[in-house]
Amino acid sequence: MKNILPADLTPFLDFVSHEAEAVESAMHEDLAEALRDNDPFLVEVIEYALFGGGKRIRPLLAILAARICGSRDTRIYRLAAGFEYLHVATLVHDDVIDNALERRGRLSVGQKYGMPVAILAGDWLHARSMFLVGRYGGRDSLEVFCRSTAGMVDGEFLQLRYVADCGVTEKQYFDVIHRKTALLIESTCEIGALFAGADRQQCQALAVYGHKLGKAFQVIDDLLDYQGNAQSTGKKTGNDFVEGKVTLPLIRTLACADEHNSKMITALFAGDRTKADAVVRIAKIIEEHGGFSSARETAESLVHDAVTALDIFSGNGDRESLSILRGLAGYVLNRDR
Amino acid sequence: MKNILPADLTPFLDFVSHEAEAVESAMHEDLAEALRDNDPFLVEVIEYALFGGGKRIRPLLAILAARICGSRDTRIYRLAAGFEYLHVATLVHDDVIDNALERRGRLSVGQKYGMPVAILAGDWLHARSMFLVGRYGGRDSLEVFCRSTAGMVDGEFLQLRYVADCGVTEKQYFDVIHRKTALLIESTCEIGALFAGADRQQCQALAVYGHKLGKAFQVIDDLLDYQGNAQSTGKKTGNDFVEGKVTLPLIRTLACADEHNSKMITALFAGDRTKADAVVRIAKIIEEHGGFSSARETAESLVHDAVTALDIFSGNGDRESLSILRGLAGYVLNRDR
Repeated sequence: MKNILPADLTPFLDFVSHEAEAVESAMHEDLAEALRDNDPFLVEVIEYALFGGGKRIRPLLAILAARICGSRDTRIYRLAAGFEYLHVATLVHDDVIDNALERRGRLSVGQKYGMPVAILAGDWLHARSMFLVGRYGGRDSLEVFCRSTAGMVDGEFLQLRYVADCGVTEKQYFDVIHRKTALLIESTCEIGALFAGADRQQCQALAVYGHKLGKAFQVIDDLLDYQGNAQSTGKKTGNDFVEGKVTLPLIRTLACADEHNSKMITALFAGDRTKADAVVRIAKIIEEHGGFSSARETAESLVHDAVTALDIFSGNGDRESLSILRGLAGYVLNRDR
Repeated sequence: MKNILPADLTPFLDFVSHEAEAVESAMHEDLAEALRDNDPFLVEVIEYALFGGGKRIRPLLAILAARICGSRDTRIYRLAAGFEYLHVATLVHDDVIDNALERRGRLSVGQKYGMPVAILAGDWLHARSMFLVGRYGGRDSLEVFCRSTAGMVDGEFLQLRYVADCGVTEKQYFDVIHRKTALLIESTCEIGALFAGADRQQCQALAVYGHKLGKAFQVIDDLLDYQGNAQSTGKKTGNDFVEGKVTLPLIRTLACADEHNSKMITALFAGDRTKADAVVRIAKIIEEHGGFSSARETAESLVHDAVTALDIFSGNGDRESLSILRGLAGYVLNRDR
């Protein structure tokens, strides 16, 4: 697949950074309203959780989905903030669950403030995200949003079920990442379209775009977990392996490995996964079997499907938004964090 | 204050148990719909969390608030289930935070299934409660509901701030219990009225009823923590003291204790609170200073205010609902669990 990033990245990057700033302003305004009479410690924790260098991809998607369907209503920024709140709420709880030390190169909320505070802060963000989606998105949006939130929990349960299970199938892997990651991105795009009063075909196209993009996003995340530079990602390399998560590069490897290599992989998963050379050995086997490149091809193909879903907008949608949505899809493939 | 429980309890108890059954049916129906394609383990955990002998007071209040305002719409049962979901979600997370072993005489969700599962199950219930309130209550109800949920978190933060602080004032204590307990009960009653399309005065009256009742409920909870029978309450006696919670009986005691007794209380709070005789000594000092009876009088006065707020319904509201709402207030005072 050819590179779908535009040749001149400047307008794309300008747009993304400008809109990310607008989202951060909306978040600050919303927090000033929501936390007015609240405990100052709660305010501190919520701000620490929200303003730590997030990429704001979900809010951007909501904004672009509304725009491409013709809306210029600026209340979209408040609605968009809701998606970031929910995303951060799940990260904060996930970090408690995984006992993660760091997030984006800083202490996780749980490590900095303790587990009780992290659970409560996640709950607060969760409630506020629902509030924003209900207020600015209306009833249909809220239904879509709540369904995807509940689905995300279901995805985490599925993932717990498959820990250190080298027999996980590709279908099961995609089931997990669909619920865990793609559902929220899909609903973000769909709700942006609903906000704009889009017709059914447009809502559907944006939902497909979000669904495919979300899956691609997670496949790339799983690749970066092995291949990323810890300094750009802010995450330790090989973390998924240590936590026993069997991801696509490994599934592809197991599908073509001989008995010797399969047994080696199974033994490494069953053994002490925190040993420094274990992850290096796993990564070497995956590399030799083309597991990384095979997973990357799948991500490319998902991004291709995502971009194709937007074709209905080529004639009559907002041209700039279409170009940025395509650019975002390219970014998902090429990101290093 | 005279006993406000009706002389013949039979119709009251019949109603309560009949409606509690209807709520449980609505919960089962809703779960069958919501969890249809979900991980069976998630289903098991959610059912364990929800069906463990809860008193279903919040759903009952929502139903009665709608009825007294003239509604007979049976969708109220689904809406009412949402309040129970949210209540249970907070209990599940609180038990993780407090590392509680038991809840209602059984293992807490966190102890039975582990902390990660308990956090996720709480999140699922939280999301589903919002879904139900948004679907059956509409946008205004959802706003009231989300505000009270966020306020509950704020109450927990306040409570963390005051742990083992014997200087807590009565105002601070009521600030905490307002957010932690009364807000949800208040919004339950208000949303029940909104569901019925009640006028502003009726909504307001039911909100006041819920607010006062919620505070009384928590004051009694705090009394039962010292005086209750562990077998009926399903909670260990003296738990609040062990966790460093300074509640109304103690605040009233500190307000009238001499220097010797004040120092003794402060020393017991600063010392090893898990020692078996520490809680016995604290309880003895409170008893001698009339701290328990003084707190009970406050609960009675709050219940009196709650019941008085319903006076606007004496002429034109549903008589049976009025009588049951009064009865529930009496139950809150006289409950032993």
